[in-house]
Amino acid sequence: MPKQKVSPAVVRRLPRYFRHLEELSLSGVTRISSRLLAQRLGLTASQIRQDLNCFGGFGQQGYGYNVENLRAEIGEILGVSRGTTAVLIGVGNIGRALCNNFDFARAGVGLLAAFDVNPALVGQSLGRIPLLHIDTLDAFCAAHRPAIAVLTLPRELAPQMAERLSRLGVRGLWNFTNVDLHLHEHDVQVEDVHFADSLMTLCYRARGEEP
Amino acid sequence: MPKQKVSPAVVRRLPRYFRHLEELSLSGVTRISSRLLAQRLGLTASQIRQDLNCFGGFGQQGYGYNVENLRAEIGEILGVSRGTTAVLIGVGNIGRALCNNFDFARAGVGLLAAFDVNPALVGQSLGRIPLLHIDTLDAFCAAHRPAIAVLTLPRELAPQMAERLSRLGVRGLWNFTNVDLHLHEHDVQVEDVHFADSLMTLCYRARGEEP
Repeated sequence: MPKQKVSPAVVRRLPRYFRHLEELSLSGVTRISSRLLAQRLGLTASQIRQDLNCFGGFGQQGYGYNVENLRAEIGEILGVSRGTTAVLIGVGNIGRALCNNFDFARAGVGLLAAFDVNPALVGQSLGRIPLLHIDTLDAFCAAHRPAIAVLTLPRELAPQMAERLSRLGVRGLWNFTNVDLHLHEHDVQVEDVHFADSLMTLCYRARGEEP
Repeated sequence: MPKQKVSPAVVRRLPRYFRHLEELSLSGVTRISSRLLAQRLGLTASQIRQDLNCFGGFGQQGYGYNVENLRAEIGEILGVSRGTTAVLIGVGNIGRALCNNFDFARAGVGLLAAFDVNPALVGQSLGRIPLLHIDTLDAFCAAHRPAIAVLTLPRELAPQMAERLSRLGVRGLWNFTNVDLHLHEHDVQVEDVHFADSLMTLCYRARGEEP
């Protein structure tokens, strides 16, 4: 499958397809029309057909999509079963919330360890995630080659840490710091988590028919 | 402006437009072509023109967009300056992280109070957010009519709390619990925050040219 032909906007929608198909599959739905799938996702049926055509289709005109096949195919494209490895940097409130409550495994990610500067935290564990001192990060990365780093450290430390992680071979940064990271010299992908986008969308929708 | 004609997909992109235009404006850019704006946003120029046409345009063929005007117009559509009010339910890790670190005001939202069941927390404050006991929620909502509730409570409590908030007149739920909330009887909008979607997108992109 020629990845370079898939637009970022399509890639961005794939996890939503995956999640909805997983829910449909779990609730026993075996087949769904592009119209109904579109309704669930808030997209148009033609957009869904276009999106899935980037990967060679999956649908049969008039018969809709086989939910479990499509879920498995999109999971394969997303690499959910490949086991991406990750480290988390910064065990403040948000880092702790992710370690304790977020199901990394369900997204196909193995969180190997969390790092912090605070010596009081080191040696503890969060759930099953070991908590290590940031000074051991270089050695840890050399030994375990994590693909992804979760950035939940204070924002003023983020740019320098992003550089350091890039040099350590990390290929993706999941950035919760709201800092715009510029790493053009490195082959590193940055995914910014912008809570505000979601909240502003909600405010718009919640206002409804008000003048 | 006839809101009902704007598709959910367009509404979902507006905060991203707003954020990028804000950044451009702050860095002194006064005018931008739809091509360059598209590049920044990972969209096509024609998609941007279509999106903005839903609201009557703003662009002049060949001259690009006036950054500050467009930012202000989209901010107006999103209602950033109207001051939506909110309460937060559940002061665990994620609730605490939002109260301490998330800039609600920048998204045009005034967070009035946070609620929890834990008596040890009550009476404290998180930054400038007062922390109140959940038993006082009904009286608080009657007095202050918050438009939005942030759901950061344990997932098993979420459906019941969502019902309660709907009855109390809340019109939007910002849902961090990963529970699918069904509130079809009520006129309440739900915005789910799905961390996994963002992480899976990153994993895909970070794999890059790997076979």
